[in-house]
Amino acid sequence: MRIKLFTLLLIMSVSGYARNEDSVKIRAIANEILLHGKAYENLRVLTKQIGARLTGSPQTYKAEAWGQKALQQAGADRVITQSCLVPHWIRGGKEEAWIVGKKNQPLDILALGNSMGTGAKGIQAPVLLVNSFEELEQKKASVKGKIVFYNYKFNDTYVRTFEAYRDAVGYRAQGPGQAARYGAVGVLIRSMSHAADNNPHTGSTRYNDSFPKIPAAALGLQDADRLAALLEKEPATVFLKTNGKMLPDTVAHNIIGEITGSEFPEQIITVGGHLDSWDPAEGAHDDGSGCVQSIEVIRVLKAIGYKPKRTIRAVLFANEENGLRGGSKYAEEARTKKEKHIFALESDAGGFTPRGFGVTMSPELLNKLRSWLPLLEPYGITEISNGGGGSDIGPLNRELGTPLAGLQPDSQRYFDIHHARSDVFETVNKRELELGAVSMAALIYLVDKYGL
Amino acid sequence: MRIKLFTLLLIMSVSGYARNEDSVKIRAIANEILLHGKAYENLRVLTKQIGARLTGSPQTYKAEAWGQKALQQAGADRVITQSCLVPHWIRGGKEEAWIVGKKNQPLDILALGNSMGTGAKGIQAPVLLVNSFEELEQKKASVKGKIVFYNYKFNDTYVRTFEAYRDAVGYRAQGPGQAARYGAVGVLIRSMSHAADNNPHTGSTRYNDSFPKIPAAALGLQDADRLAALLEKEPATVFLKTNGKMLPDTVAHNIIGEITGSEFPEQIITVGGHLDSWDPAEGAHDDGSGCVQSIEVIRVLKAIGYKPKRTIRAVLFANEENGLRGGSKYAEEARTKKEKHIFALESDAGGFTPRGFGVTMSPELLNKLRSWLPLLEPYGITEISNGGGGSDIGPLNRELGTPLAGLQPDSQRYFDIHHARSDVFETVNKRELELGAVSMAALIYLVDKYGL
Repeated sequence: MRIKLFTLLLIMSVSGYARNEDSVKIRAIANEILLHGKAYENLRVLTKQIGARLTGSPQTYKAEAWGQKALQQAGADRVITQSCLVPHWIRGGKEEAWIVGKKNQPLDILALGNSMGTGAKGIQAPVLLVNSFEELEQKKASVKGKIVFYNYKFNDTYVRTFEAYRDAVGYRAQGPGQAARYGAVGVLIRSMSHAADNNPHTGSTRYNDSFPKIPAAALGLQDADRLAALLEKEPATVFLKTNGKMLPDTVAHNIIGEITGSEFPEQIITVGGHLDSWDPAEGAHDDGSGCVQSIEVIRVLKAIGYKPKRTIRAVLFANEENGLRGGSKYAEEARTKKEKHIFALESDAGGFTPRGFGVTMSPELLNKLRSWLPLLEPYGITEISNGGGGSDIGPLNRELGTPLAGLQPDSQRYFDIHHARSDVFETVNKRELELGAVSMAALIYLVDKYGL
Repeated sequence: MRIKLFTLLLIMSVSGYARNEDSVKIRAIANEILLHGKAYENLRVLTKQIGARLTGSPQTYKAEAWGQKALQQAGADRVITQSCLVPHWIRGGKEEAWIVGKKNQPLDILALGNSMGTGAKGIQAPVLLVNSFEELEQKKASVKGKIVFYNYKFNDTYVRTFEAYRDAVGYRAQGPGQAARYGAVGVLIRSMSHAADNNPHTGSTRYNDSFPKIPAAALGLQDADRLAALLEKEPATVFLKTNGKMLPDTVAHNIIGEITGSEFPEQIITVGGHLDSWDPAEGAHDDGSGCVQSIEVIRVLKAIGYKPKRTIRAVLFANEENGLRGGSKYAEEARTKKEKHIFALESDAGGFTPRGFGVTMSPELLNKLRSWLPLLEPYGITEISNGGGGSDIGPLNRELGTPLAGLQPDSQRYFDIHHARSDVFETVNKRELELGAVSMAALIYLVDKYGL
C-alpha cells in the first residue's frame, strides 16, 4: 500500500511537473509572439505590397517568392516547393448589371469564380425569383430564357456563422448548374453573408457538364433585397455583363518551410493556410492570416530555442479557392513518398480572436487534445470540438488518415468580409491575429512533445 | 428506498424540464434579437445623430431625450429620470503640442479629462522622461520646471487586456498629481493602449489638491516612441497648449426604463450602461453599446411576451467617465427609498463578441450563476469568473450589498479605441453587439425566474 501510494504520488508529481513545464513553455511562446511577433508585419507586406492573388495571376508567383523568403527569415531549416497544375480562371474585365427601366438601376455584382462570361454584349432577360431549390423545382416550367435569382437568406440565428454558410453555400456552388438544367440563361445569387453593407461576395461555382455554362454573379444584400422587393410587386428584367474565362491549366506551388525533427524526423506535423485568394480584395483574413500564423509557428519555436523532436512543416498551400490542387498535391506526394503524417493543423477561418479547435480524429485522440485544454485556456481556447480541420489538409486525412485540427476563431465578423472587396488588412487586429498564432504554436508544441 | 428513488427521479425530471424550458426561452430571446434586433440601429442614431456626449455638453441632454424615447419604444412600462449634480469639464478648443527645434515636430495630443489648460500662450519646457513612478522618485530632484513624460508601456503579454489597463492607468489618474508634487509644470503620458495607430487616448485624471493643477495630455504610441527615442539621445523641449477648464457643476440625469414585476415588484433587477462618453469620438463601444444592449433587454422580454416576476430596470447612467455621479445617485436613491436591489448587471467593456461574465457576489451565488452556464454557452458565454461588475453599479454593491455582474466581451480590440477618436460606430459589429445583448437578456431572464 505504501509503495502504491508512493508510486501514485510520483506519477502525480511528474505529471504536475510536466504540466508546469508546458505551461512555462507556452507562456514563452505567447510572450515572444505578443512582444516580438512578425505575423502582422508579414501580413501587411503580403496584402499591401502583393495584394489579391487568385491562382494563376502574376501575384501568385510574387506571393510564392514572398512566402519562401518569409519562411527562411522565420528560421526554417529548409524551404522547398511542390509544383502542381492549377486551374486558371480570370474575371476578365469590368462587370456590369442593372435593372432595366426608364431609368436603369445599377446592381453591384461580382461574377462567381470559375463562371463563364456573358460575351461582350452582355445578356438581358426577365428575372425569376426563387428563395430555394424547392421553389426552383416548383417553377421549373418558367425557367427557360430567364435569369434565375436565388435569394436564399443566410440564417442569422446560427450563432456559429459557419453553420449558416454551410446551409447557404449550395446556392453558389450548384445554383448555376441547377438553373441551366431548366434552360436559364443566367444566375444571380444573394451573397452568403450577413454584412450590413452592399458588397457582393464571390466564391467558386461548379457547373453541371451536361448543361450550358451560364453566367452567374453575386449580389450584395442591399441590392438583393431591393431586387426581391421589386419582383414581389412586378416583373423585372436585368442586364448582365460578365467576362469570366477559364484559361488552360497553369503551374503553381505549395511553399513549405521545415524544422527537421531531432528524434523522429520521419514523423511530420503540418501547420498551414492557403496562399491564394479571391481577386477583388487582399485575402487578408482568407487566408493571408493562416499563412502568416503558420510562418509564425516556425519562427516562434526557433526564437524560444525549442528543438522539436518531430519534423514541423509550415505549408502555404496553392489554389484552395477554386481547385484545391495544392492540398491534393501535398497528400499525393505524402502518399507517393510514404511520408508519415501524424497531425495537420490549418488556420483558414480568419485572423480573429481564437476560441477553439475543431478536430477530425478518433475519440481517443480528441480526449488527448482535450486534456491539454487547461494549458490553452489562458490564451482564449475554451473548446476542442469534434468536426473540423481545413480544406487544404482534408486530403491528408482522406488519403492517409492523418488526424486534423482547424483553428476556430470567433466567427461573427468572418462572413462580413469573406470573398468580398472588404477582406483587407485593415480589418485584421494585430493581437487577435497573434493570439491565433499563439494557440497554434502551443498545440503544435504539445503534439510534438507528446506525439499523437 | 423506492419512494426515495421516485422522488429523486421526479426532481431530476422537473429540473430537466425546467432546463429545457429555459433553453427554449433563451433560444427565443436569441432569435428575436438576431433577426429583429434594434440595438444596432439605436446605436447608429446615438453615435451618428448625437455623437460625443461628455457630461454637461449639449449632447448630454439630446442623448437623455433619445434614451427616454428609445426605452418607451422598447416597451418599458414606465420611464423615469433621476437628476444629479455633475462636474462640467470642457476641453475648451484647439490643443497643440510640438517638439521644439529648428523645425518643430508636431505631437498629436488629447488633454486628459478634468485637466486644467496651459493658458492661452501655452507652456514650453524641457521634458523629463520617466518610465515609472519609481523612476520619478529617483529623479525627483530634476523635476522642477519640467514637463514630465510618463512612458509606461501597456503590457502586451496580458492576454486579458483589462489587466494591462489596470496595470497602467495609474499614470493617467495620478501621474499629474505626483509630478506636480515635485514642481513639474506639465505632464505628458503614453496612452493606455496597444493600438497600431497614433491616436492619443484621453480619460480622467485626478489632481492632488495640495499641489498645482498642472496641464496634462496623452500621446499616441507612435509619438510616444518617437519622443522617448529622441530623449534617449539628447535633451528635448516641448511646447504644449491645452485649454481644459472646470465649469460650475451642472445637472444631468439617469434615464430609467422599467418593466414592473408581476409577483415581486419590490425586487429590482438592474441592467445598464453609461450614457456619457469622452468628447473626441462617438462613444460607440464606451458605452453606447452598453446602453443599447440594456434597452434591448427590455425590448426583447416584451417582444417574446415574457412577463418578469421581478421589476427589471434598464438604466442609462449619467457621468461615468469623469465623476460617477449617476451611479452614486442611483445607489443613494435606492438606499433612501429602501429599495430591494437583488442583482445588477452592467455592460461597459465594449460591444464586442461576448465571452463571459465577471461577478462580485458570494461564492454560493457565483455557483448558482455557474450552474446556468450550459444555457449560456451556445451564445458564446464560456466563463463566469470571480471579480467584475461595472463602475456605475459599484455603489449599489458597496452601499446595499447588491450582487453584481459585468459582461466580459472579447477584450482584444477594446484598448485600440478606448477614449480615442477611433471609438466610432463603424468599429462595432452588428452581430457581436447583438450577441452581447442576448447573453445579458438570458442572464436577466434566469435571475428573474429563479431569484438570487
